Amino acid sequence: MSKETLILDGNQVANSIKEALKERVKRLVQEGTTPCLATVLVGDDPASETYVRMKGNACKRLGIDSKRVVLDQMTSTEQLIHVINELNNDPSVHGILLQHPVPHHIDERAAFEAISIEKDVDGVTMLGFAQNAFGQALFPSCTPAAIMAIMDAYHIPIEGKHAVVVGRSPILGKPVSMMLLNRNATVTICHSRTQNLDHLVSQGDIVVAAVGKPNFIQGDWIKPGAVIMDAGYNEGNIGDCDYEACFPHASAITPVPGGVGPVTIATLLKHTVDAAERSMKA
Amino acid sequence: MSKETLILDGNQVANSIKEALKERVKRLVQEGTTPCLATVLVGDDPASETYVRMKGNACKRLGIDSKRVVLDQMTSTEQLIHVINELNNDPSVHGILLQHPVPHHIDERAAFEAISIEKDVDGVTMLGFAQNAFGQALFPSCTPAAIMAIMDAYHIPIEGKHAVVVGRSPILGKPVSMMLLNRNATVTICHSRTQNLDHLVSQGDIVVAAVGKPNFIQGDWIKPGAVIMDAGYNEGNIGDCDYEACFPHASAITPVPGGVGPVTIATLLKHTVDAAERSMKA
Repeated sequence: MSKETLILDGNQVANSIKEALKERVKRLVQEGTTPCLATVLVGDDPASETYVRMKGNACKRLGIDSKRVVLDQMTSTEQLIHVINELNNDPSVHGILLQHPVPHHIDERAAFEAISIEKDVDGVTMLGFAQNAFGQALFPSCTPAAIMAIMDAYHIPIEGKHAVVVGRSPILGKPVSMMLLNRNATVTICHSRTQNLDHLVSQGDIVVAAVGKPNFIQGDWIKPGAVIMDAGYNEGNIGDCDYEACFPHASAITPVPGGVGPVTIATLLKHTVDAAERSMKA
Repeated sequence: MSKETLILDGNQVANSIKEALKERVKRLVQEGTTPCLATVLVGDDPASETYVRMKGNACKRLGIDSKRVVLDQMTSTEQLIHVINELNNDPSVHGILLQHPVPHHIDERAAFEAISIEKDVDGVTMLGFAQNAFGQALFPSCTPAAIMAIMDAYHIPIEGKHAVVVGRSPILGKPVSMMLLNRNATVTICHSRTQNLDHLVSQGDIVVAAVGKPNFIQGDWIKPGAVIMDAGYNEGNIGDCDYEACFPHASAITPVPGGVGPVTIATLLKHTVDAAERSMKA
């Protein structure tokens, strides 16, 4: 292939999002409101602890407060909802992130639904999902929003393109499909029961990997010139796409790490600042 | 083709749904609750008047009350929402149907959102959409639910099949895509900006036509043996598929009229009875 593959640099996109937030945070602080993200972690899963710490550190670097709530592994659904309600009612908190997965005995959906829509900066509530599906979300889920932000930052055309999304989770596959659809892509949603997955992926002008299996998407599945958005983040910093094998076929690709991940965090920060600004107007 | 095409008889499916409701309505009435559907019609669009009258008549035949609210063409969004709130608060009303389209000056989405989720028997609210997308709706949109009911009545396999949905409206294309996805179909969502539509439709094991253009889907687009679900209902009782041309290619097809339409109404009645039963338990 004569044309070089473009590496979609998530760190650069994230930095430009964060750069644009600095002035807004400064203004909010001057007006007496420091944006604040509350993170709720239940249990002691090391990966989840790492994610929460990363998010907290990212807040700090921008001057955004973060309020860390850590709950015991044995916390009940009712106790968790009680904590979420306290955060809903706390005017100093602008965004609430419940780190998932939560322990199995907790009704995760009920806990997500407890988050007030005004503070649902991670876009996990059902109402937030529907608003996003209808193109009018306050806060779309961060990873899908990050995928769109990267494509927009690199001026990758979406309208009329065939996007193949591999994965159908409520916070990734389903919402990113709706976002691509609302941007006038034709969207195919694949999953574990899909037959002839390779054939379907090979039709994608845009391929979104959201399946959570390391190196799952193979190089010879990729249509020459396709754009690959890899939202996978598996143990050992490995994406859902076999990067080396996919790279030569793609016109553009997100690396893992350094692709969708940092933009997801930047989007979370942006939503927190958005929420803080909204709270000022309320 | 040696095998005959199966005509999916919506009237028969509708009758068996309604037959099953009779005993439930009887029991509710004995217990002092007559299920009641409120229909709200704004303006004097003749087609909408016909639909509302058909729904009212269908209620009557089953012993379900229907409360018809007809509002002037010039009704404001606020006035319409006020009427909907009265119906929300009326314990004798179990389901609310706002006939759409409403006049252009009305904020249809705001009016839909005013309907209480417990009475949203037509599945038009955003929360109802999301519940449906996550496989846990009280009342999925009636036309998508009717499409699924017909396929189930005829034992048409869905899991692992490639379903191509043509149309992406909030009450048809999007929810039916989510329902097919939740039943483990691979789903491609096409629309007015889709390129190579014929090629995409020709891959569908199941084709759902939800585009609102008479005779739009052509016979030579249809994969041999595909199942065609035509949710179109255009002027002159014409579907979205060119029926005569599609028929010989399909293994099964819904006619228009007599396909998805009657099952949509039966589903609305079923949801109204469901809502009445739920109100007894509340």
